[in-house]
Amino acid sequence: MKISLNDKNMLAKTIGSKHGLTDEDLASIKPEIPRVLDEVEALRAGGQETFFDLPYQQDEARRIKRAANAIAKQCDNFVVLGIGGSALGTTAVHAALRHPFWNLLAKKQRHGRPRLFVLDNVDPDWLAAFKDTVNLKRTVFNVVTKSGSTSETMAQFLHFRDALGPKYAKNIIVTTDPHEGLLRELVNKMPPAKQYESFEVPPGVGGRFSVMSAVGLLPLAVVGVNIERFLAGARAMDAACRKPTLDENPALRCATLLYLAHTRKGKGLTVMMPYSQRLREIADWFRQLLAESLGKKLNRAGDTVHVGLTPIKALGVTDQHSQVQLYAEGPFDKVIIFVRAKEFDKKLPIPKGRPPIQGLEYLGGKTFNRLIDVEERATEVALAKAHRPSYTITLPKVTPETVGELLHMLEMQTVMISALYKINAFDQPGVEEAKDFTYGLMGRAGYEHKAAEFKKLVGK
Amino acid sequence: MKISLNDKNMLAKTIGSKHGLTDEDLASIKPEIPRVLDEVEALRAGGQETFFDLPYQQDEARRIKRAANAIAKQCDNFVVLGIGGSALGTTAVHAALRHPFWNLLAKKQRHGRPRLFVLDNVDPDWLAAFKDTVNLKRTVFNVVTKSGSTSETMAQFLHFRDALGPKYAKNIIVTTDPHEGLLRELVNKMPPAKQYESFEVPPGVGGRFSVMSAVGLLPLAVVGVNIERFLAGARAMDAACRKPTLDENPALRCATLLYLAHTRKGKGLTVMMPYSQRLREIADWFRQLLAESLGKKLNRAGDTVHVGLTPIKALGVTDQHSQVQLYAEGPFDKVIIFVRAKEFDKKLPIPKGRPPIQGLEYLGGKTFNRLIDVEERATEVALAKAHRPSYTITLPKVTPETVGELLHMLEMQTVMISALYKINAFDQPGVEEAKDFTYGLMGRAGYEHKAAEFKKLVGK
Repeated sequence: MKISLNDKNMLAKTIGSKHGLTDEDLASIKPEIPRVLDEVEALRAGGQETFFDLPYQQDEARRIKRAANAIAKQCDNFVVLGIGGSALGTTAVHAALRHPFWNLLAKKQRHGRPRLFVLDNVDPDWLAAFKDTVNLKRTVFNVVTKSGSTSETMAQFLHFRDALGPKYAKNIIVTTDPHEGLLRELVNKMPPAKQYESFEVPPGVGGRFSVMSAVGLLPLAVVGVNIERFLAGARAMDAACRKPTLDENPALRCATLLYLAHTRKGKGLTVMMPYSQRLREIADWFRQLLAESLGKKLNRAGDTVHVGLTPIKALGVTDQHSQVQLYAEGPFDKVIIFVRAKEFDKKLPIPKGRPPIQGLEYLGGKTFNRLIDVEERATEVALAKAHRPSYTITLPKVTPETVGELLHMLEMQTVMISALYKINAFDQPGVEEAKDFTYGLMGRAGYEHKAAEFKKLVGK
Repeated sequence: MKISLNDKNMLAKTIGSKHGLTDEDLASIKPEIPRVLDEVEALRAGGQETFFDLPYQQDEARRIKRAANAIAKQCDNFVVLGIGGSALGTTAVHAALRHPFWNLLAKKQRHGRPRLFVLDNVDPDWLAAFKDTVNLKRTVFNVVTKSGSTSETMAQFLHFRDALGPKYAKNIIVTTDPHEGLLRELVNKMPPAKQYESFEVPPGVGGRFSVMSAVGLLPLAVVGVNIERFLAGARAMDAACRKPTLDENPALRCATLLYLAHTRKGKGLTVMMPYSQRLREIADWFRQLLAESLGKKLNRAGDTVHVGLTPIKALGVTDQHSQVQLYAEGPFDKVIIFVRAKEFDKKLPIPKGRPPIQGLEYLGGKTFNRLIDVEERATEVALAKAHRPSYTITLPKVTPETVGELLHMLEMQTVMISALYKINAFDQPGVEEAKDFTYGLMGRAGYEHKAAEFKKLVGK
């Protein structure tokens, strides 16, 4: 395992016992730990939730990589039609591991790989604008929906299938359930020669835990991410996440910190603040993971609990000029998770200037690497001095392995927090109501009662 | 005034009195209103905070527009070197009013206007990658810092000045205080023929209130935003924001809603959720405005209060698949501000498909316009049914006028909320600590004691 954790600024001895965790707080959670670990192992063994297995599916990864290399050769643009868990992991890992201005590069600078678009919204202006930007004939559309029936994605599918026309039908690639759902049925009904190329989301893998399935791996491999090293990182982390103690098991440690900060110190807002432009979208992916997994009305016993940690995406150093005022002086309701890279790929100098500018001597002759590192540490310490808890995850460098480690740790941690709250991490019953109203208002058969209910509620 | 407000879902009669505002809640704030309005008028008259005047500086806007048109002809790339308030307004309005894939378009599709980059971070990998992407000779750098001494921006200035070399010195344009600061001194010391072209941030305008000064107007005009219509929208809103009643004054109404939801119902998290990809970055600009203006340790009387509303950026429909589970079922601590456009610029069909796909009949033959509108309304009502307060801001269309209205309303509302909390909206004392530690660690003269303090704190 390459990434490391420093949680000194979570502790009472650093930030005081009103906001920091005391030895008693930490001791109080110890009896829960065997239960939490047992529950995770039971889930793993039960075979219902199968995201645990994804890092080990190396044959599948090799198949995906071969297919991806062939696809990459056929197109200039690769487009994910998907939303939520079908989109966020791809965006996050792409941003972390490919050139930050990928779509602006010449094809040669991209080593012949296509541009990547993730169209995770149904805004008509945005989708129309996208069509101005690409040559559809040279564009492959990857329709990603596990259920095969997500409204937004299926509407996009209908639109772009029509825009491509029968001649370019082969520009459509499908990632969905291996057996179930509209999209799989559609593929199965096509004559073999005309069938869309298709990939599988293993049945027990939910959207927000799917980045290491074909959902994420296919588009990532198409743009040249080393998915094998990415999975290797996840496997290294997985081994650590089965260790029995807080000292050895980073997911367990983070889960415990966040749970205790919430339940013992009233800090229910979880800010993830990477000091790295490339890791920025990981905070967005984490937002879904935390919000959908832990924001629950009922616990597993059926009691009404309305729990949840509210994730907040931030970015260092940028948000020092936007959010840190609030984090330092506002309500004591947040934990900040700093994420940093010990080393960047490039070293970028801050020249002295000829002649040096008076008042900037402290910058000239240094590097941006030093500046961003110093600012991160300064912010950590300034927040700790203001009695604000934080912990820091350090990646030695942003690589496929370390990103794989980080994502898997965050997934494991989320499952462990759900065990602490005694809630189900894998469902999202709270989104059904809006979905059903949407069906009703769009005139879907069987949802007439929801249209009627909507009218009645709006009339109030 | 073109934008409108619907706050029915904030009220007890819709969502119940435990989470909704009752008539008594609303009545309880009435006595405060004359004071709030008086304080705003006093600020306006006092001449210390001058953002109020910006929409009326039409001569300045015309000057900026002329200069911008000339600059646009000279370059392929226009780059803002700035952070926080020097960056966020430009990003927000550009995203709202220019093509969503602006930088990917051919120059002809951009009507000859340059690409726009806002480099609001000091990540060395990101900045180095930026240099791969552009031809520096054809790139104009707008250094934006009111104080003329922001570390991040000045480090970038040193770097790109060096990279351009003396031959392309004229590719640098400065926006800073008219009289004070390092950057202004530097410009003044240059021989007139070699002087950087420079623009002024009026002295009383703080970063987060500066989008309608040269800070935002110059880059926006360079990419062809109609800044005159943008300011006209702000003026229309400004007139409304001086009206004396909650019914006529939308900023006052929103300020009151957010303040009451927090102080009477314990809802301190303010989610802004535009149902429009183009308005997405306005939520990010709003994040700074709210967090820095209202997140304060002390009130104006000097009492320790630790107040603040925590802003959260969301996006419809995308975040229905990421955050709405939490908003519907998690803790009762949020107000959702929906922002929507009644009409989009484009109408985009969802074809029926030949043959129509069974199970998708409810989509085929409709439009994306209808789908996004229905999803927004469905989410509003589903959240209200779950007793979650929200209100909705509707723009008839996303235009320079309506965006100007919206931004000015949000600025005015922020000042009014600060009057309700009796805090200063215009300072940010909480960021000094981290800045000073940064100076200390970077070796700036006069900050040796901060370096020593840092070491001591870290050693603990």
